[in-house]
Amino acid sequence: MEKLNKRIMLSIGLDTDFAKLPVGLSKDPNGMLEFNKSIIEATSDIADAYKINFAFYERFGALGIEVLYKTFQMLPKYSLSIADAKRVDIGNTSKAYAEAIFEHFRADSVTVNPYMGYDSLEPFLSYKDKIVFILILTSNKGSSDFQRIIIDGKPLYNRVLEKILTWQSEAKIGFVIGATHPEELNAINNTFSDKVLLIPGVGSQGASIGETINAVTNNFAIINVSRDIIFASNKKDFAEKARAKAKYYKDIIMQAL
Amino acid sequence: MEKLNKRIMLSIGLDTDFAKLPVGLSKDPNGMLEFNKSIIEATSDIADAYKINFAFYERFGALGIEVLYKTFQMLPKYSLSIADAKRVDIGNTSKAYAEAIFEHFRADSVTVNPYMGYDSLEPFLSYKDKIVFILILTSNKGSSDFQRIIIDGKPLYNRVLEKILTWQSEAKIGFVIGATHPEELNAINNTFSDKVLLIPGVGSQGASIGETINAVTNNFAIINVSRDIIFASNKKDFAEKARAKAKYYKDIIMQAL
Repeated sequence: MEKLNKRIMLSIGLDTDFAKLPVGLSKDPNGMLEFNKSIIEATSDIADAYKINFAFYERFGALGIEVLYKTFQMLPKYSLSIADAKRVDIGNTSKAYAEAIFEHFRADSVTVNPYMGYDSLEPFLSYKDKIVFILILTSNKGSSDFQRIIIDGKPLYNRVLEKILTWQSEAKIGFVIGATHPEELNAINNTFSDKVLLIPGVGSQGASIGETINAVTNNFAIINVSRDIIFASNKKDFAEKARAKAKYYKDIIMQAL
Repeated sequence: MEKLNKRIMLSIGLDTDFAKLPVGLSKDPNGMLEFNKSIIEATSDIADAYKINFAFYERFGALGIEVLYKTFQMLPKYSLSIADAKRVDIGNTSKAYAEAIFEHFRADSVTVNPYMGYDSLEPFLSYKDKIVFILILTSNKGSSDFQRIIIDGKPLYNRVLEKILTWQSEAKIGFVIGATHPEELNAINNTFSDKVLLIPGVGSQGASIGETINAVTNNFAIINVSRDIIFASNKKDFAEKARAKAKYYKDIIMQAL
């Protein structure tokens, strides 16, 4: 995966919630597309990756999916595109999801859910030159409901991680671990090297970029910031303010590298 | 939920894989819509529910989603519509998914994934008069990878189930349990009553309808059959053959009731 070209990368999350669009943009799919275009143009020399969350587009059915498609095609060729879709199903159905993500939208990577086991993810894992990010320890409060259940002295998310490390895959396997759990992130980081971690939770969700960087020393880390960058201003200067906020995060990363 | 009006219901799964469409239909979204229309017309007096699997439509981006939307609107008003989307995310993102399912597509129910915990499902659970089917023990082989991990003598899926039974919800909560695990299905059935189970796995996946009916005595059961009904023939008589196959399953259910 050529686009995985820095040890720590900044991902901008295009969580384009129509209700939060700045003044001057229509609060509908057209406004969303215009907004994404402005954000991408203003940050294309700063962001290493863009994570696009499908939910905000699916909200509008076919019109939203059209905006989603156009947004993927609008991303700079050198940046890593992340389809944050958290998909999974069985057999042929999972294959159809994988085709949607990798062949229709032509994303470089995807987020998927491990609950259904290996065969449910196999269609995603069969794609070479793609990254499949599997949810391990998510950034939300509810992550403790099941992911932290203790089994023989270890939490479930650890058991999931260990099992996945034994899996065959053509695609590169990555792990989603929330920055809101810095100690666990660091502990996981210390168990292997040269893996790739997708880390949400910095910014509006409360985690600190510095602490996150310090937690991931041995691995590739893609640190995602969504709302704190894209909704930095809800006025006409929104793209300029998003650029400044992206640069703020990128500078911290560059100093650490 | 008014549409939950029989103790055992037959659901037809519109897993409309474009590659499997019968002769005479174009292998694209137009063909898919024509196929769904024919299947629905041929079975509307037999099916109690229709389960629509999003993957096969997403495969074609906006064009596919348009067909998905039209298919939902084409379902008989008295049948229960099941959005088989297996969605989940956090906070606002999960809210956008719930809005897509319940407000855009106007589905009566949805399948969701429990791995991210209560708060990730809360936006779905906040809808009155909807059913939220949570994955418990899925019908695939990989269900043993994580769902069957033993914790204090009990499998994880049981722990997930027990926790969910303590949750607050405006929506009716249902459980997805594969018919390919008849003993476990029966054991779960015996632990409560008047809950609603969505049961895939009968037909092409190998489970028997009789064994499934015998396993669920205390609860509402929606038994889903997809490929074995909709792809009963790949010739011009496909709708007629789908009707005959649907009637075969429905008759067995009616005899049991």
